[in-house]
Amino acid sequence: MDIIVQKYGGSSVGDLDRIKNVARRIKEKKETGAKLVVVVSAMGNSTDELLSMARRLSEKPRPRELDVLMSTGEQISIALLSIALNDIGCKARSFTGHQIELITEGFHTKSKIADINTSVIYEELDKDNVVIVAGFQGINTNNEITTLGRGGSDTTAVALAAKLGAVCEIYTDVDGIYTIDPGLYPNARKLESINYQEMMEMASLGADVMHPRSIEIAHNYNVPIYVAISTGESPGTFIKESDEIMEKTVITGLAVDSNDAMITVNGFPYNINFISELFRGLAEKHINIDMISQTTPVGNRISISFTIPRNDLDIALKSLKNLEKKTGPFNTETDTDIAKLSVVGMGMRTQSGVAARMFSVLAENDINIKIITTSEIRISCTIDPKDQSKAVSAIAKEFNL
Amino acid sequence: MDIIVQKYGGSSVGDLDRIKNVARRIKEKKETGAKLVVVVSAMGNSTDELLSMARRLSEKPRPRELDVLMSTGEQISIALLSIALNDIGCKARSFTGHQIELITEGFHTKSKIADINTSVIYEELDKDNVVIVAGFQGINTNNEITTLGRGGSDTTAVALAAKLGAVCEIYTDVDGIYTIDPGLYPNARKLESINYQEMMEMASLGADVMHPRSIEIAHNYNVPIYVAISTGESPGTFIKESDEIMEKTVITGLAVDSNDAMITVNGFPYNINFISELFRGLAEKHINIDMISQTTPVGNRISISFTIPRNDLDIALKSLKNLEKKTGPFNTETDTDIAKLSVVGMGMRTQSGVAARMFSVLAENDINIKIITTSEIRISCTIDPKDQSKAVSAIAKEFNL
Repeated sequence: MDIIVQKYGGSSVGDLDRIKNVARRIKEKKETGAKLVVVVSAMGNSTDELLSMARRLSEKPRPRELDVLMSTGEQISIALLSIALNDIGCKARSFTGHQIELITEGFHTKSKIADINTSVIYEELDKDNVVIVAGFQGINTNNEITTLGRGGSDTTAVALAAKLGAVCEIYTDVDGIYTIDPGLYPNARKLESINYQEMMEMASLGADVMHPRSIEIAHNYNVPIYVAISTGESPGTFIKESDEIMEKTVITGLAVDSNDAMITVNGFPYNINFISELFRGLAEKHINIDMISQTTPVGNRISISFTIPRNDLDIALKSLKNLEKKTGPFNTETDTDIAKLSVVGMGMRTQSGVAARMFSVLAENDINIKIITTSEIRISCTIDPKDQSKAVSAIAKEFNL
Repeated sequence: MDIIVQKYGGSSVGDLDRIKNVARRIKEKKETGAKLVVVVSAMGNSTDELLSMARRLSEKPRPRELDVLMSTGEQISIALLSIALNDIGCKARSFTGHQIELITEGFHTKSKIADINTSVIYEELDKDNVVIVAGFQGINTNNEITTLGRGGSDTTAVALAAKLGAVCEIYTDVDGIYTIDPGLYPNARKLESINYQEMMEMASLGADVMHPRSIEIAHNYNVPIYVAISTGESPGTFIKESDEIMEKTVITGLAVDSNDAMITVNGFPYNINFISELFRGLAEKHINIDMISQTTPVGNRISISFTIPRNDLDIALKSLKNLEKKTGPFNTETDTDIAKLSVVGMGMRTQSGVAARMFSVLAENDINIKIITTSEIRISCTIDPKDQSKAVSAIAKEFNL
């Protein structure tokens, strides 16, 4: 049984006309003989509206109750889409997270999928029904309603595709994955395909098309993904494994992230225990550290710079203050005025000199780099935000993005 | 364990301020030591809004999907109320119909409660939590979301109270049960108490405070009900068994129903098979017949008059047309311009002459009666709507309502 899992995002089902459009597209696909499982998000910004009601009732609404509240958004979408489909003669049935037994573990409002009981889905597909599944929601082993946090509906779709051995089509309001966000660089090219590792780097670097966690599941279970615009007006981008060296391009994409802050500690004791304690302290506060750069020791003292989400800056500084009780005083500088530029590409693994090319281009354009980190398929550097658009253009031209 | 089941209707939780008010009232009650189970309806007219979306997508939305859709209204209310309660330090947890295992049978959008698994509720009450239950919804044995139709949340509350051996407090936007709808007769008295049978007659006759089916359950399981305004500003009315003859009043209340139509068939064959076929045909179309009056036969022909909901008139006439194939032709008259006046009271069982008093009063006021029916505790007659307010005042004075 060849199954396709489709996912339609909040803007694709944002009003009744759009829901009708989506229904027509599903019907057309169904008529080609496909077995369809369709995951939908809540309509438009309805989740935000629910959240804002909760916040007006309580500064700290209980996460368990937030999940009960927020899961209604997707439940409304699945019912309406199913009604629209049946109305045009396409047999469909809707299912909540509880009904397809999408079992989660972990905390309310940011649960993780533990398992999905696919027997209901197979039964419905056998009856020639389109199976409409509420994204973003599940149920934990205590029979409590849970939600999956950011990117939850993508995660539902990819996990379902993994479990069903299906391909996963993500329909959204952008028409594919671009080498660079076209909002930053209008000449950016749409990619025909990108592989999981590159997409994961791009996603975690702020290319907002898909959440990195859904790409990670796709990668782990080798689920082919197709990202396209929900109106179907232009071809999208495949995200899939590709070990072929058919790609001659070294760099697949460029991502810019303007939401980070940089912290530099100067005069920090050159002691591996203290260094590890520094980063452990931040990890315990659930702060994601991205770039880390460390100087060679001078007089048993070092400087360490690292980037964190700007929102976490206060918590991070408090954690560092605490650390001084053990390490003795050190000097802390913060820089909230940074832009993080990253080039990503599998080609880097086999081709040397990419970093050199990137830095020469930046140097030729008089762009100062603050810190640099490199991984196997990514090079990142932070620059002054005022240089951002100049840097993006220069790198795009150099690497033909 | 003394448990109170409270139910708050849609207008009582119509906006966030009202939800906060309800939360405060629940907290006060909780602090008296009560174990509380609270049933809530959907906020304001949100169910109608959901229904209207469905209708814009399809002329005949699938009932199964309507249930998935409409049940979200109550789910939103329970989450918000629980958030508001926890915010003011009153421990509460919300539960959907599925989570408390409120099992239903029958059809989607008009299911009946088959059973409720109270173990979850007892567990939560033992932990000193207020248990917030979504009204109007359940789940059938196929694990499908169902709703209970009109008066569904009242039914949920009364059924829970029956199952838990609790009293049931219905908080609504009216402040109790009146002898007559105060909108029709401003001098109507609020009743301190009314018994189940009387309330059932009043409810089915259009006193819109509670749906007759919830009263029926209360009667069957002897659940004491207290109906009051949700702001708590004035005492309400008890609905309970009362065999005591302490009530000196013969008539408890007067109800007016303006939604009926009257059908009269003239020259109908005087044949019990045809007569029963007439009413069976209407019953098969789910048409509720209220008053029936039949003349004595003249030349083996009779006239029969009966009232039905005005909305069902077309279907009823079609059914009668069909019957003529068997009975031969008869003449059918319809009258959509009628008001049905009913007086209800347990006292009638023991006191004679009530009907006579009622008809003299109407006669003295030159009010023509079209048809009359009587039951053990009720006398109904249809009159011209233009006489309605005169009739209401006259009867109210005669019986001191």
